Parts: sequence; C-alpha cells; structure tokens
Amino acid sequence: MASKSAHMFRNTRITVVTMAKRHFANGFSHNGKVLTLDSMNEHIKKVEYAVRGPIVVRAGAIRKELEQGAQKPFKEVISANIGDAHAMGQAPITFLRQVVALCVYPDLLKTNNFPDDAKDRAQRILDGCGGGSIGAYSASQGVEIIRNDVANYIERRDGGLKSDPNNIFLCTGASDGVVAMLKLLVSGEGASRTGAMIPIPQYPLYSATLAELNAKMVPYYLDEDNNWALDIEELQRAFDEGEKICLPRVLCVINPGNPTGQVLSRDNVVEIIKFAKQNHLFLMADEVYQDNVYAEGCAFHSFKKVLYDLGPEYSDHVELASFHSISKGYMGECGFRGGYMETINLDHKVKEQLRKLVSCRLCPPVTGQAALEVIVNPPQQGEPSFEKFDAEKRAVLGTLAEKARLTAEMFNSIPGIHCNTVQGAMYSFPRIEIPERAVRKAETCGMQPDAFYAHELLEETGICIVAGSGFGQKPGTYHFRMTILPPIDMMRSLFKLFRDFHLGFLEKYKE
Amino acid sequence: MASKSAHMFRNTRITVVTMAKRHFANGFSHNGKVLTLDSMNEHIKKVEYAVRGPIVVRAGAIRKELEQGAQKPFKEVISANIGDAHAMGQAPITFLRQVVALCVYPDLLKTNNFPDDAKDRAQRILDGCGGGSIGAYSASQGVEIIRNDVANYIERRDGGLKSDPNNIFLCTGASDGVVAMLKLLVSGEGASRTGAMIPIPQYPLYSATLAELNAKMVPYYLDEDNNWALDIEELQRAFDEGEKICLPRVLCVINPGNPTGQVLSRDNVVEIIKFAKQNHLFLMADEVYQDNVYAEGCAFHSFKKVLYDLGPEYSDHVELASFHSISKGYMGECGFRGGYMETINLDHKVKEQLRKLVSCRLCPPVTGQAALEVIVNPPQQGEPSFEKFDAEKRAVLGTLAEKARLTAEMFNSIPGIHCNTVQGAMYSFPRIEIPERAVRKAETCGMQPDAFYAHELLEETGICIVAGSGFGQKPGTYHFRMTILPPIDMMRSLFKLFRDFHLGFLEKYKE
Repeated sequence: MASKSAHMFRNTRITVVTMAKRHFANGFSHNGKVLTLDSMNEHIKKVEYAVRGPIVVRAGAIRKELEQGAQKPFKEVISANIGDAHAMGQAPITFLRQVVALCVYPDLLKTNNFPDDAKDRAQRILDGCGGGSIGAYSASQGVEIIRNDVANYIERRDGGLKSDPNNIFLCTGASDGVVAMLKLLVSGEGASRTGAMIPIPQYPLYSATLAELNAKMVPYYLDEDNNWALDIEELQRAFDEGEKICLPRVLCVINPGNPTGQVLSRDNVVEIIKFAKQNHLFLMADEVYQDNVYAEGCAFHSFKKVLYDLGPEYSDHVELASFHSISKGYMGECGFRGGYMETINLDHKVKEQLRKLVSCRLCPPVTGQAALEVIVNPPQQGEPSFEKFDAEKRAVLGTLAEKARLTAEMFNSIPGIHCNTVQGAMYSFPRIEIPERAVRKAETCGMQPDAFYAHELLEETGICIVAGSGFGQKPGTYHFRMTILPPIDMMRSLFKLFRDFHLGFLEKYKE
Repeated sequence: MASKSAHMFRNTRITVVTMAKRHFANGFSHNGKVLTLDSMNEHIKKVEYAVRGPIVVRAGAIRKELEQGAQKPFKEVISANIGDAHAMGQAPITFLRQVVALCVYPDLLKTNNFPDDAKDRAQRILDGCGGGSIGAYSASQGVEIIRNDVANYIERRDGGLKSDPNNIFLCTGASDGVVAMLKLLVSGEGASRTGAMIPIPQYPLYSATLAELNAKMVPYYLDEDNNWALDIEELQRAFDEGEKICLPRVLCVINPGNPTGQVLSRDNVVEIIKFAKQNHLFLMADEVYQDNVYAEGCAFHSFKKVLYDLGPEYSDHVELASFHSISKGYMGECGFRGGYMETINLDHKVKEQLRKLVSCRLCPPVTGQAALEVIVNPPQQGEPSFEKFDAEKRAVLGTLAEKARLTAEMFNSIPGIHCNTVQGAMYSFPRIEIPERAVRKAETCGMQPDAFYAHELLEETGICIVAGSGFGQKPGTYHFRMTILPPIDMMRSLFKLFRDFHLGFLEKYKE
C-alpha cells in the first residue's frame, strides 16, 4: 500500500510538473505577465457584485463630468444604488460619535464639551482595550466588554432569552461574518459538491461569496405576488432540485429582506426553522435590518427567539448563525465596518476552528467595535444623553417609514411599474414592464434588459439604481433595486423624473 | 460531443448525489450536527497562526487568574508575542488622533481645542467622504484624496519616482491586501498545483493563507549565520525544489524582516528582482516595517525604487505588489486596521478583477483610512503641529532603536542563547539551546521543544513569547520571537527574569 501510494505520488508529481511547465509557457506567450486573466483564480472571474458594478462606475464618471461643467439633462447624480445612509445626507447619531471621538482622542475626557454618559461609556471601552488604547489590537473575537454588551442586547431583544458572550464574534461589518461562516460550511476540497440555499432575489454578497468559494448556489424564489413571502413549498422544490447537483448544507435567509423589503411573519420563521431541521441545514440568518421595520402589523422576529420558543427538540439541535451590523438600522455607520455574529449550537470544535480562522486577520477595527458598543448599550432613561439619542433615533426611523410608504405609492402610480409594500429594510424592488423592442435593443448592446433600462435612466435623469438581474429574479421578469435613503424632498423630485423617464421609455420602445 | 457531455453530466450527477447522501448520513450519525470537524472546510483545519495561538490563550487565562488573586512567581504577564505597540504602553501620535477625532465628531471643528492644521486635514478628509461623513462607505479602493496622498507619499519616499493613485488599494490592514493578492495568484481550480515562495522563518499570515487557499508553500531559508540575509543560491534551490511539486508563481519577501528583523541591502534587493524576472515570479513585498530601521549602516530600499533603478528591462515587466500598514512604524495604530497596497505592472484586466473582488467587501474602515492619511500627509515644517509630531515620532523610533540594541546585547549575554542584530522591524528571533532531556520531555507532552520552552517561560515568569516553530526554522534548531515593544524599564526586568529562567531550564534538563 505504502509503495503504491509512493508510486502514485511520483506519477502525480510528473503530471503536475508537466502541466506546470506547459502553463508556464502559456503564461509567457500571452503577454509576458505572470498574472493574467488566463492564469488568475478563475473562481474570482465568476464573482459578480452589482451593487458596486459598472452602473456605479458610470455614475461616478458622470458626477465628475458634471463637476467639470458638462451639460446634462440633470444637475446632480442621485445615488440610490446602495444602502449608504450618510452619503444621502442622514446625520450621524450624536452620542455614538461623541463616544467614539472620546475613545480616539482621550484628552477630550478632560474637557467640558461632552456629556458624562458619553465620557463614562468611552472610559469603559478604553478600559477594555490593550494599554487603554483603541489603537491596540483587540482579541480576535472582539473586545470582551463589548461582546458582553452585545449578549445583553440580544437578551433584551429576545425577551430575556440567554445569550452567551462566547458565542458572539465581532466582525468587520456583517459581510465579514457571513463570509467566515460560508468558508467553514461550503468551501474546501468538496466545495463544488456542497451548496447554500439563497433567496432570489438576494443580496449579491451571497452569490459572490459562493462563486469565490466554488460552491453551488441553490436558489429559492421569493413570492412576489405575496409581497415577497418565503414559501415553504418553494423551499422544498429548491432543495430537491439542489440535491440533484450537490449537498445543500446551509439555508440563508435575509429578514427583513434585501433587496425585497419584506418582513417575515413569526409563523413563517417557525416553518423555516422546521424545514432547516428536517433537511439538516445550517441556518444563516442575515438580520442586519432588524431595526428597520415600518409597515403596520409587521414586527421583527429573531430566528433565535423563535428557535427557542419551539422547545429543546429544536433549540438543542438547529445550528444557527445570526448577523447584525452598524451599517444599517437608524445609525447607518457603514464606514466604521462594525457588526457581530451570534452562533447557536455551533459544534465546540468548529468554534475553535472559527476562532483560529478569525485570529489570522487579527481583529475587526476597534473604532467599529466602539460604535457597535453604543448601539448595544445606548443611553438609558435618566442619563443625560437619553432624550437626544431617542429623538434622533425616532426621527431617522420615522422618516424612513415615511419614505418606504411614499416609495411604493409613487411607483405604483406609474403605469408599467408595480411595487410591493416596503415593509422593512432600506429598499424597494419594483417590477417593470420592458417593451419587447427595448429587450431586443438591450440584446444588441450585450446587456440584460433591466440593466439597459437602468443605464438609460442614469444617462437621462442622473438616478443611479441597480438592475434586478444583479440580485436574481424569475426569468422573463425585470426589476430594479432603489434605496429609500434620499432625503424626502429629493425623493419627490426623483419620482417626477422617474415617471417622465419611464413613460418616455415605454413610448420610445413601443412596437 | 454534446450528447457525450450530457451523458457525463448525468453520471457525475448520480455520483455526486450518492456521495452527498452518504455524507449526509455520516453527518447525522456523528453528533447530529451539520457542521462538524469532519464536515467543515478541511483546508481551514490546516491553518496555523502562532502569533495568537495556544500560548496567547494561556497568557490571557493567567492574567485573569492573577486578577482573581492567584499566587504566581510573578505579578504580571508581559505580552511580548505580538507587534502591538499601544498595548505595551506606547502613546499614540497626538496629531493623528486629533485628525481622526475631528473626522468622527465634526462639531469639534467649531471648538478651540485643536490646532488649525489638524482641522484642515480633517475637513479635507470629510470633503472626500460621501455626504461629508466618515460613516459613509468609501469607494472600495479607498477615499480618492487619500489614495492620491498615498501616491504622493510613495513618490517622496522613492526620490520622485512616479506613483499612480489608480495602483493604490487601501486595505483593512496590510493582511487584507496580502490575502487579496494571494487569492488572485494561487487559488482557484489549480491552487494545489501553484505555489508561493515564502521565507523561513516567516510571518505566519503567509503560511496560514496558503493553507486556507490550498496552495503550496515553497519555503526558502534565511541565512541565520549571516544575520538572516536572503541568499540567492538558496532561493534557486528552493525554486528548483518547488518546481517538482508545483508551479511557483509568487515570491514573497518581508523587508525589514518579520520575525527576523534583518534589513535587506540594496544589492540584495537587486538580486531578488533579477531572480523574480528570470524565474517568472510575481513579487510580493511586505514592507510594513519600512519606517522601522535601526542599525547603523542599514537603510530601507523599496522594491519599487530598486526595480525602476534597474531600467525598463525590469521596470516594464516585473509585477510587484508592495504592502504598507499603519499598525507598525512609529504610529502603531493596529486597532484602526489601516494600510495600503501598491501594484506595479499589474495586468489591467486583472486589476479590474481585483477592484471587483474588493468591492464585495464594500470598503476598508474609513477611520483607518483617515489615520493612514495623517501618516502619508504629516504636518510640514511651518505648520502648527509639525514640531510636536516630529518630536513624538523621533521619540518612538529612538526608543525602539535603543530597545533593539539592548535586546541583542542582553540575549547574547545569556549562555545558550544567540541573537542576531535586530536591524529593523519590531522583533528579535534568538536561537536557543534546548537540552536533549527537555526535547524528550516536550515530546511526551506532544509539543514542539521550543513551544515547551515558551510555555515553561510563561508559567514561571509571565513572559509571553512565540515559539520559533510557529514561524518555521531549520530542522533541529530552536528559536522564539520576542517583540522589542515593552517599555525599557520592563525590558530590563524582563531580561533578568529571562536569564534566571533560561539558566534554570538548562540546569533542570541537563543530562
């Protein structure tokens, strides 16, 4: 046996070297470079991330053209492509910025410019940092007191249900946690034989990461006719279909939905958890919009809380990772890259491996951790900053709710556009009619019909949205994602521009 | 042909599904979990990262025991395992913190607590941010004006040699850039057939990333007898050896060296570049310690500068990525996770792919980008903050130089320890004699001899170092990495403790 292996190894070695030399020669003959489109990691070539794709690049170019005095049918570019609240003029939460500023420059603790509760929070964070400095690496899993406060926050959110700080991993935004879990679950030697169930439409981080990891996407369609609800029969269909090509190992759910803005009912969450258990799936719950619920009668139900409500038959078994972020909610602090992941029922040896994996990148940015601390440990009634904090939070969420309502109303008033109720999150995902002639025109441009639509919209109005094809949609249907973040006055003029464009588009391409 | 593929596909499908079902059954029979040590990504299991390995976990536990009143032969744990300057009491650079605090809480711009040049810098950064907020996502490649200033900084560093901001990618620490480049170069379908040449001893980010990407490590040994110089004959030997198992595609060089602290001479850099060209290797230059050069007669020579000095025969062809970080140097701002990478001669289509890849993670933390801005655009003579900035910078670098000298001197005064001159970076990597009896004892504990040594040192003295086996070393030799970061008084007592421990260890385990 040993000699057989040795023999096999020799053979493999010869093949490898021969292949290597051939590849090497190819590399040279191409353009002389080591790293070319031909020699690079081909999985990365398959990665697509529409939220920052070609249309956003074009929007940036147009913005520069306008700055240089170019004449366009519009005066400004409206970036409605990405959930980037501050870029759209949303003001930061004062208390959050005060605490982080105090951590960054502790000399300010000696001044009278800051309320005591901000100073107390900052001092507490600094006490948890190496050498009392936010410039020290934190533990790879995050600053201990911040992890403790995240656990307390989750306990309050989930009606007192216990949360263990050892299950909390602070992250460089939620994306970082999502990627780490997917790496453990669906990559490695058998990547191409394992799959992740993802909603369609989806936030393209999922498809991009699966492409990079060379794992299979097992898409399940959300039910547009039912306000993007998650239908269990469709989940089963998708699973059965997926099983023909791979082992589906993870079920990813985004709630509230991105790009679709739906909020799952509690009953729906129950069904999903039961489905995951029955089909032996690891649950990844992207809950970064948990504070963003607007519609009457809707409420956020965390997967963890519902899991425990189902009793030990479920809560002792179903493996779950839930993700949260400071980039969304009412704070919108995208630039800080802060977030966390909570793992439930994660095998303890796997947890050790996860700890090791995250340690290679040392730690999430500590400024982002500090900002997260404020969100999970906000000022309490009676503290000096409570009222201002609460007022700012309510104002942001109130305006978002108003814009969510306005968005569906305005889109539905335009012939040929249908928009579901924006129950939560930060996006509408309206369906658009695209005339056959425009579909054919798009084809001649080598574009998807809805990407063609989005480009025409941008060139004619300066409005930057992302085509539905970047998120996935049922074949033959066309959509786009637009954020609800522009200021309300800008939104009103945006909808006027949009209506005129859309009607013009229908007219231009009618048969 | 088409029907043959379809047939093959069916067969593959059947095999996949059968394998999947079998795997599925196994998963259940194990412990009922979806994600187990058996089912997880096996490449991650091979990842090792000693800098935050078991000894650091143990150090943390001891620190807690001490806090809870445990009696030990020492009063405090000295963390000399990681290049984390602030954790060891190094004060931040005032101007850097002022600028970042102003960006975080712009209300401070209206106060009189800050010098004008700090305010100007902060306002300029904010003007470059979406919506004027550091809480907005930046462009994925980084804030444009900061990239421009990085390019200017590189031009000044390299005697006016042009740097193109389009070649600059801001990163979440240098690690982020290193991983992105390695992903492009050595992972994907052919990962196990491609390799990266890495120094031994090396900073374990390299081996950890290669393990995760399932690529081959092609190790070349640094010459300890020649103060850890990089010998071209050894490079050739390693390459020839590597070619037997893979296609070596990248040459990674760390200059100044981590963990070895050597600084490459200009002639050595010339030889390395020539070697890379001759052997069609992509050069990755980890230059994060470029400000940390202490020894008389040593100077930092950037790979880029030397490459261009060699003329177009080289500068038009050799592909290079150089990495820098705000975690090291005189600022030591590890927690901010800031850094950049400059690419030279990168194929423009590959650069597009790299842009797409980094866009999936949205952007590096903007606070880290702001901190980097200060480093690449420091106060100039005549500006209000110049003198303080310059004095703080000199003080840090002066103390580090003094501790580098002291470290080698002290270690070399202990029998059985040999330490090369610490020419640069932040570490010594002394060689230690370990008696045969201790080697056997370590074996019975299932430990590497130097890891055993490091654990005994920690338990007896509270000094936390990292065993040489975590970085790689010539078989049969033993080393450890210790930072030069503890305050000088602490270092003096550390060396006394170290001497007593080492002599005691030799005595305890003598034959």
